[in-house]
Formats: sequence, structure tokens, C-alpha cells
Amino acid sequence: MIDKGALTQDLADLAPIGSLPEGGVTRLAFSPQEAELHQIVSSRLTELGGKIRKDAIGNLIARWPGLDDSLPAVACGSHLDSVPQGGLFDGVAGVIAAMAAIRTIREKGIVTRHPLEVILFVGEESSRFGVATLGSKVMTGLVDAEQYLDLKDATGVTLREAAANNGAQLAELKSAARRPEELKAFLELHIEQGRVLEETGNKIGIVTAIAAPTRWRITIEGRADHSGATPMGLRRDALAAAAELILAVEHYGREEAPQQTVATVGVLTVEPGAMNVIPGRVQLGLDIRGIDIDSIQRVAKGVRKTLERICQQRRVSVDIQELAADKPVQLDSTVIGCIESVCQELALPYMFMPSGAGHDAMNMAQITPTGLIFIPCEEGISHNPREKATIEDIALGAEVLLRTLLHLAQGNCGGEKQC
Amino acid sequence: MIDKGALTQDLADLAPIGSLPEGGVTRLAFSPQEAELHQIVSSRLTELGGKIRKDAIGNLIARWPGLDDSLPAVACGSHLDSVPQGGLFDGVAGVIAAMAAIRTIREKGIVTRHPLEVILFVGEESSRFGVATLGSKVMTGLVDAEQYLDLKDATGVTLREAAANNGAQLAELKSAARRPEELKAFLELHIEQGRVLEETGNKIGIVTAIAAPTRWRITIEGRADHSGATPMGLRRDALAAAAELILAVEHYGREEAPQQTVATVGVLTVEPGAMNVIPGRVQLGLDIRGIDIDSIQRVAKGVRKTLERICQQRRVSVDIQELAADKPVQLDSTVIGCIESVCQELALPYMFMPSGAGHDAMNMAQITPTGLIFIPCEEGISHNPREKATIEDIALGAEVLLRTLLHLAQGNCGGEKQC
Repeated sequence: MIDKGALTQDLADLAPIGSLPEGGVTRLAFSPQEAELHQIVSSRLTELGGKIRKDAIGNLIARWPGLDDSLPAVACGSHLDSVPQGGLFDGVAGVIAAMAAIRTIREKGIVTRHPLEVILFVGEESSRFGVATLGSKVMTGLVDAEQYLDLKDATGVTLREAAANNGAQLAELKSAARRPEELKAFLELHIEQGRVLEETGNKIGIVTAIAAPTRWRITIEGRADHSGATPMGLRRDALAAAAELILAVEHYGREEAPQQTVATVGVLTVEPGAMNVIPGRVQLGLDIRGIDIDSIQRVAKGVRKTLERICQQRRVSVDIQELAADKPVQLDSTVIGCIESVCQELALPYMFMPSGAGHDAMNMAQITPTGLIFIPCEEGISHNPREKATIEDIALGAEVLLRTLLHLAQGNCGGEKQC
Repeated sequence: MIDKGALTQDLADLAPIGSLPEGGVTRLAFSPQEAELHQIVSSRLTELGGKIRKDAIGNLIARWPGLDDSLPAVACGSHLDSVPQGGLFDGVAGVIAAMAAIRTIREKGIVTRHPLEVILFVGEESSRFGVATLGSKVMTGLVDAEQYLDLKDATGVTLREAAANNGAQLAELKSAARRPEELKAFLELHIEQGRVLEETGNKIGIVTAIAAPTRWRITIEGRADHSGATPMGLRRDALAAAAELILAVEHYGREEAPQQTVATVGVLTVEPGAMNVIPGRVQLGLDIRGIDIDSIQRVAKGVRKTLERICQQRRVSVDIQELAADKPVQLDSTVIGCIESVCQELALPYMFMPSGAGHDAMNMAQITPTGLIFIPCEEGISHNPREKATIEDIALGAEVLLRTLLHLAQGNCGGEKQC
């Protein structure tokens, strides 16, 4: 059984890092706050007997040997960074659940047949540099991460500088790639970040597919003119053009709601940005997600068409920089089956569902059979100081994680034997 | 005649202050750059024999005694601060034209019957603190400037701190108010900041009325949620709400185009402002201008109505903070007549026109008969690095300013005698 007291204590010990006077936490990717959280969890994993190493991008890997240590490891984990003014549970819930599972295994004196690993991924959130799940991208070795290193945050710091400050060995990035034969499976527990579990009364969501984001940085160039002396008919207002685009993004997102696709403009800056100057330049970020690639592409096409019309009608110019165009990821059916049988063992109400948000699990699925376990979060609120999951729900999820880990690590799952 | 060489030199000497590598200048209200410009012009006015004083808010007043120094002074001037990344001519053209007029008067050895003054107003642009023409507001004494002192700029610096750093004596603000009997008239030369003079081929615009701004700071509160996991139908997206508002502002502005009213959203910030977070809060600035108060009020009413509908339909809340609700200002018909007769003397093509932009002249008109002389600027571009007025046009304007000053200061205008 999961130790709820220790779970509560873990959460409380991490809570102060990056906490804001106005509520919530800011623990940006590759920030000192993220490094401090890694340090705290690293100490605790060491106390639990884990052997710690960091890879070249800064992912932390704790390992417990198996009875047959030559077998591939069964891994679990999540991330510790947050969006600006985010909540306490996104990523953290998965990390403390993984610690809780290992704690139970250690306290019972269990040594599994396969080695076990807990992985803390760095830089999962895209808020700072515009690129998401960087730690797990590097771990798969399927992406050339060099292309991201010169991305800058809002203050002009490059990803290269920030990662190096946190101890990353960027000259050896490729060494962080894991060979598929090192891993038997990867499991991640995460808060749902939506309202489906709460509304349906389920305690566990077994994720079948992950909606990967398509992301564009869009720049609209109009002309900065004096707001008082430029008649309405002579304007080339970049912000009015952006307003049309934002409503079009919403429109196409709504049209694709039946396919569970969503579309969002979450960032926007105006230049020069003065009360009495018509906006000359607007830069904004578009984020499209779904599990149906045709639906995603219909939204992207609609947005492009709208931009063409806006350019003509408003005499503005537009530049689109594609930051991501990932494909939806199907998760492993054997791992899914193993999680389901654990839920049935525990008589927990569960459901199958897609994930609207991207997760490190979607990258790990490229190199190893992967499962993603959702637990409810209050009102579906996430990326917000009010984000909340109860200790009871985290403990239930950790119990599912623990049992699934044991099934996989004892060789009762994963093709060797049906669990 | 105006000395074009000296005019060119004055412009060149001021150009480097606050200049940006990417073009244009940033010389914000109450910034070190504004103080430096005041310092340079102050030295030059001293060389021209002016007696310099600064008032409590930091306006600079240079005075040349008249033959009868007990008579009210005839003043002229403008401002030296700019919007962020603004041009070289907004305000500056009026200051160097005033210097050029005084230079000619001094070189010819003319001593006028009435004393002359050149006034450099501080803080004309609203870009930094959201309040415009602060220096001239304080000089009229009709506004309690205390109400503005706690306004903050984007970096959290208060107007109080910034003005004090530039030497303002804020405890004695009221002492800056001038008694109407001190002044006979005030004249300002300014670039048009629109395209009317250029398109009609006129060299001088004689302004009949100034469109004062109505300004609101509008805050829209929605809810910050994860962009991937929140279905379109459950969102309370503050930026999508703002987009509707921006298009409504444009719509109502266009409807009132026949009345020469304009409406603009020039600033907008998004919180928390991340690619994968639905905007929870948007703050934006609305600027409505016109010379027809009913037309301005129709726009304001339309915007309020739209906001009410948006609140209901999108389940967001809205707060409106009124920063300004100034009334259009009619300029003095005698001074207008005097400027017109000078244009006729010089056989210059001129026209009567309203000013869409606010100017220090609109405040000075509250305490003394005031005139505003427009000169063309290229393509009407202003508040932009590409802002441009030719030395020839500035010199023509300065000649009109010089002759009007002389008519008024010799007592040939202003009711004593028709000029």
C-alpha cells in the first residue's frame, strides 16, 4: 500500500520552490527552481537506495538493480518544471507517485526481476523557449536537439545558456539517447488537466493516444502610425488583423470539437505598444492539438486561409514559423491492458481516454512500450495556481502505478505472460 | 528669414539622444533622455539671451523681456519627449522652429513690445504613464496633477519617482500654474501626423479645433486553463474576448469616420502568456478621438455595449478604468486670423483643419488665446522611426510662427488691432 503520509510530506517539501506571493509557482524549464527541485528529489531517491546519474541534457535517472540486472529496465517518471504561475501538481504528481511506488517496493523488501528506474525529465513545458518535452525528446535520440539550443526566452537568454547553467553537457547531447534495448517499458502518471474524470466519476484514466501539438509563431506586420491623426480608412493595424486571426482560430477549433481538436492563441505581443500608436507589429503563438491528424490539418488549413484573406484585405504581411508539427501518438496496447487489469484488481472506476496535452510519455513511446495513467484534478484546472489533485487520488494513482510496475518488472506483463 | 543651416544643426544635435540601433528614438516622458534634450535646448536658449527657469513639474520657460515688460508675454513652444521607438520630429519640430524664430528676432536686433517666451513642456506623450500632455496640464492649474503621480510605467516606476529624478519639485506642483494675465497668447508648431496636407498640397494647416482623447484601460478576466486539455466549449478565453472587443472598436471607429472620429487599441498584454495556457487575463488600452463629442460618445457607448455582450456570452468579467475623457477644444479665432494673414502675406498654400492628435496647445487654450500651426510630414507617418518632415517645410512653418509671434508681440494682433 502507498504511504499517504510520505506522499503528503514529499508534496509539502517541494511546494515552496518557486512559489509566488500571489499564489502558484513559477519553475521554468532550465531555471534555478527546476534545478533545486531535481536536487531535492535526487536526495530522496538516493535515500531510497537509487543509484543516480544525470544525462547530457540534465534528465535525472535513478536506478534499482533487478535480480537479473542484464534485463531491460522498467521505468517511470515525469517532470518538475512548470508554466509561469502554474500549479503544484502538473508533473510533480507523477514524480511523487513514482517515489511512493519505489518507497513501498523498498519497504516490502521486494527486488524485482527487471531493474527499475525513476526518470525526472527536464524542460517539459514549452512556456519558456517555445519547445515542449525537450528532456524526453533528447532521451529518445530521434530529434536533433541542436536546432533548439539558440531559442531565446523572453529575457533574451538562450536555451543553450540556461541548460548549461543547470549543468547540461551540451557537447555530448547525443550520449543522452537511450537504446531501445535498455528499457522494457515506461510509465507516467499525470493529472488529467481536464474535467472528464471528474465529470464521469472515474478515478483512473488509461490514456490510449496523446494529442501532440502543432505550433506556429505568427508575425503580422502592419504600420505603426499616430492613433489620433490616421483616419480609420488609411490604417494597417496589426492588432486588428491579429484579432481577426484569434477569432478564426477559435472558430476552426470549435468546428473540430467533435474530433476533440482544440486551438489556442496563448501568447501575443504588440509593438510598439503605446496607447496612442496604431500597432505596427504583432507576434503571437498558435497551438493546435488533437488525436485526429486530419482534423488538426483542417484547422491549420483554415487558419492559413484566414491569414491570406487578412493580408489582402488589411494590407498587412504575415510570417509563419512552424515550431512543432508532431503527430498524435498511440500508446502500447499491452501496457494499456496491464494497467486495466490492475484497475480491475483494485476495483477502481476507470476509463480509456485520449490525452489532449502532450507529455514526456509521447516521446518515450517512440523507443519503448509506454503507458500513461491519468488521475482527476479539480474542475480540470491546470497551468494555474488553483490546480489541485487530492492526496487520496494521487495515492490511488500511485497504487496503480506501483502494481503495473511490479507486473512489468516481474515479467508478468509485456508479452512474456498476459497479466 | 529663418536660418535653415542653424535649423538643420539644431535637429542634428538633438538626433543622437535616445536613438536606437534599429532606427528611431525612445525619449519617454520623465526619462533621462528627455532631461538631456531639455539640457541641450536650455543651453542654446541661454546663448540666444533667454532667461531660463523651470517650473515645479519640470517645464522649461525661457523669457526675453519686452519694451514694456509689464505686458503679458507671447509664448511659443512644444515638447521633446517621444513614444517608444518614435521619430525625430514629433514635438522637436515645434521646439527647433521656436528657437529659429527667436534666433531671427535676436539677429535682427528686434525687441518686441510684449515679452516673448519659449516653453518646453515635459511629459507630452502618454506612452509611459497613460496620461498625456502632463506638463501643460500642470501649467494651466486646472487639473489636480496629484491624481496622476502614483501611475506606474511598465517597469513599476511611478510618475512621482520619474519626475523627481528629473528635478521636479512635486511638493510645489500648484506653483507651476500660470495666471491668465501673464500670457497674451500661445503658439505651437507641430507636424501634422496625418496625410491631409501632403495630399492637398498645402504647406500650412491652421488648426481650428483639437480632438482630445477619451482613454480607457480595460481589463478582461477569464480563466487560465491548459490549452491541450480544455475543450473549446469549456473555455473562458480572455484573449478571444479581447479580439472581439478590438474588432468592435474598429467597427465603431469606422462608423464614425464621416465625423473624423478614430478609435484604437494600441496596447495589450496577455497573462499568463504561455503557448500552452489559455489566456486568463488581458489588459488593453482604448483611445477614442474626435472633434465631435456626440460622435466620440457614440463610439464609447458602442464599446460598452459590446463589452456587456462579451461578458455574458463568454463568461468573462470586465473592468473599465477611465484615464481621460477630455473635451474637444476650439482654438482662438483672433490668433487663427493672425496666422491666416501671415500665410497670405507669404503667399503660402494653407488650409483650415482639425487636429486628430492632442497637443499641449489644447491645454494652453484653457488659459490664453492659442494657435496651432501644422506642417506636412511624409506619408503622414508619425510615432514611428520613419517620421519625416523636410527642413524646407519646418523653415516655412517657422517663418509663419516668427511672423505671427511678431504681430502678436508688437500688439498688431489679438484684439488691439486687426492684423
